Amino acid sequence: MSGTLYGVGLGPGDPELITLKAARLIGAAKVIAYPTLAGGDSFARAIAAGLIPQDAREIRMDVPMSTEREPAQKAYDAGAAQIAEALEAGEDVVCLCEGDPFFYGSFMYLFARLSGQFDTQIIPGVTSVTACAARAAMPLAARNERLTILPGPLPEAELRARIDGAESVAIMKVGRHLPKIRGVINALGLTDQAMYIERATLPEEVVLPLGDAPEQAPYFSMILLTKGADPWL
Amino acid sequence: MSGTLYGVGLGPGDPELITLKAARLIGAAKVIAYPTLAGGDSFARAIAAGLIPQDAREIRMDVPMSTEREPAQKAYDAGAAQIAEALEAGEDVVCLCEGDPFFYGSFMYLFARLSGQFDTQIIPGVTSVTACAARAAMPLAARNERLTILPGPLPEAELRARIDGAESVAIMKVGRHLPKIRGVINALGLTDQAMYIERATLPEEVVLPLGDAPEQAPYFSMILLTKGADPWL
Repeated sequence: MSGTLYGVGLGPGDPELITLKAARLIGAAKVIAYPTLAGGDSFARAIAAGLIPQDAREIRMDVPMSTEREPAQKAYDAGAAQIAEALEAGEDVVCLCEGDPFFYGSFMYLFARLSGQFDTQIIPGVTSVTACAARAAMPLAARNERLTILPGPLPEAELRARIDGAESVAIMKVGRHLPKIRGVINALGLTDQAMYIERATLPEEVVLPLGDAPEQAPYFSMILLTKGADPWL
Repeated sequence: MSGTLYGVGLGPGDPELITLKAARLIGAAKVIAYPTLAGGDSFARAIAAGLIPQDAREIRMDVPMSTEREPAQKAYDAGAAQIAEALEAGEDVVCLCEGDPFFYGSFMYLFARLSGQFDTQIIPGVTSVTACAARAAMPLAARNERLTILPGPLPEAELRARIDGAESVAIMKVGRHLPKIRGVINALGLTDQAMYIERATLPEEVVLPLGDAPEQAPYFSMILLTKGADPWL
């Protein structure tokens, strides 16, 4: 009988924001899989490090640092083949995912390759969106309010069109797109309602009004825009 | 010295989807607060029940079942006053929140009343959005995709305008708005891409294609619409 593939969300970075279920699955794992960027460290593995059994076998997927499609596809093909081998041998595989597996996560690439063939269970995790809101003390949405989640790499005109007329907005993956995003928010007159958050819930976390944000932002950074106090309160 | 107010997210319903941090805070709590709807049971308390110390003091906030503003405001005023009394006496208060405290949660009403005066810490939780996606096996958003979160009570024309042209969409609080929402999605020709989920991660969970959804939906139900397979995969 084949093993089960678990896509396990680890939350935004603080190991205490791992769920009890994820902690249980990781603590009992015999095979663990995770992506690394360009052969470097794995953020997912770092979040879960304190829970991984010493004798667990680890499958690393080295995803090249590239916005091109083919090199990444090959990396996931190779990782999926290794995972499939373990599953076929009857072993369960716990795949570590930063945040939530189905929310801008690379686990989707494994899910697409393996879920048709193997029993697959997704364990949801705390997303960076609500973690950033918690750290910035910014309620996201109440009652009949809308929340729009946008990736920072979107073109300037599209960002502007989507932010204009939105209620709460979370802009993910800010990184090198910070100057563009800041320009859009400034042009819309919304800078005073925006907060900049990097590495939320980690010791090196930064939370600042957007107007005071640094010039350079890391990949794991976010901008939150909210309408402010709910008039219904 | 005053105590600290903790707004603790409990996740979507499965007690194992509580975070390690939330579990630690609840397990050590001397004072616990939570809302109940119309004096009935508290869903938040039910999620956390196995972790609440037997000798913890419990502050219940009976929120009336009403869409009017004033009765609810009075209930939160009264609850905030009781919580403030405990905080002033130097006790920490752990406020239990379904899902995430800042994501369509009633904790925002306490946050607005108390966070100016008392140290307040928000512990983010797994939201129903990613929990429903996990249970329906529907990846939400990858790479440069957008995700739009809409409350079901929005007027029909607004729902239609917001869903049309969106990528992934999560419609919260479906409940008695199911026929209206179903009509909008049908008119847009998107029914085949939509899933209906109620009470995600609980034993009584229901996951169905929207076309097979029941006539009556409970308040804790959601519709997810996604574009399907990512062409980049």
